[in-house]
Amino acid sequence: MPDLSASVHAYVAAFAAADASAAAALFAADAVLEDPVGTPPREGSEAILAFYQGAMQTGATLTLTGPIRQAADAVAFCFTVHINPPGAAAIQIDIIDVFRFNDAGKIRSMQAFWGPANVRTG
Amino acid sequence: MPDLSASVHAYVAAFAAADASAAAALFAADAVLEDPVGTPPREGSEAILAFYQGAMQTGATLTLTGPIRQAADAVAFCFTVHINPPGAAAIQIDIIDVFRFNDAGKIRSMQAFWGPANVRTG
Repeated sequence: MPDLSASVHAYVAAFAAADASAAAALFAADAVLEDPVGTPPREGSEAILAFYQGAMQTGATLTLTGPIRQAADAVAFCFTVHINPPGAAAIQIDIIDVFRFNDAGKIRSMQAFWGPANVRTG
Repeated sequence: MPDLSASVHAYVAAFAAADASAAAALFAADAVLEDPVGTPPREGSEAILAFYQGAMQTGATLTLTGPIRQAADAVAFCFTVHINPPGAAAIQIDIIDVFRFNDAGKIRSMQAFWGPANVRTG
């Protein structure tokens, strides 16, 4: 497997640019996204684009908080998402994402691990 | 789902005590362990105990490097494993583990994400 970290950096950059299409373009057409794990998966390009359009409406940005781990066709990475809702307290959520890639280098599955205990405000 | 972080802390403590049985006792009898992801899974209590006996022979200890993320029946956590082989340079490996739990609070699957780029020496 080639180095897959470029895809993670492109993902972070897509949030910084509020470019949902750029995030969605990293995924295979039949990819499955589960964010957070335990909620109904979103499947396919349209659903995934809609997910990122929604996520980026909050002005969310991502900061990596450790090295990207790569194992075979998978990467896992820890990060904090920063959300600054207008007129409300800032929110930070500590998340670990796992991406698995197909042979074309596109994300075929994404799982986001976070829960209520990982949400901080102020 | 209850708070599953106690299991992670018990796992770290098992390494600190070099107690392979304590680590293996956190797993269900039919659990599957994949470390690193992409290698053949180890299945069942005997194989999992043998895995931890081998891992702890190196004197490995674990340091969490961020908050434990919990989503439904899963936890993900980032850590560094510290290995000090006698007469050789110290090794650190940056890893993210994902544990999924059964209803009895035992780990039913473990996946460790790390690769050559995550191994540091000195």
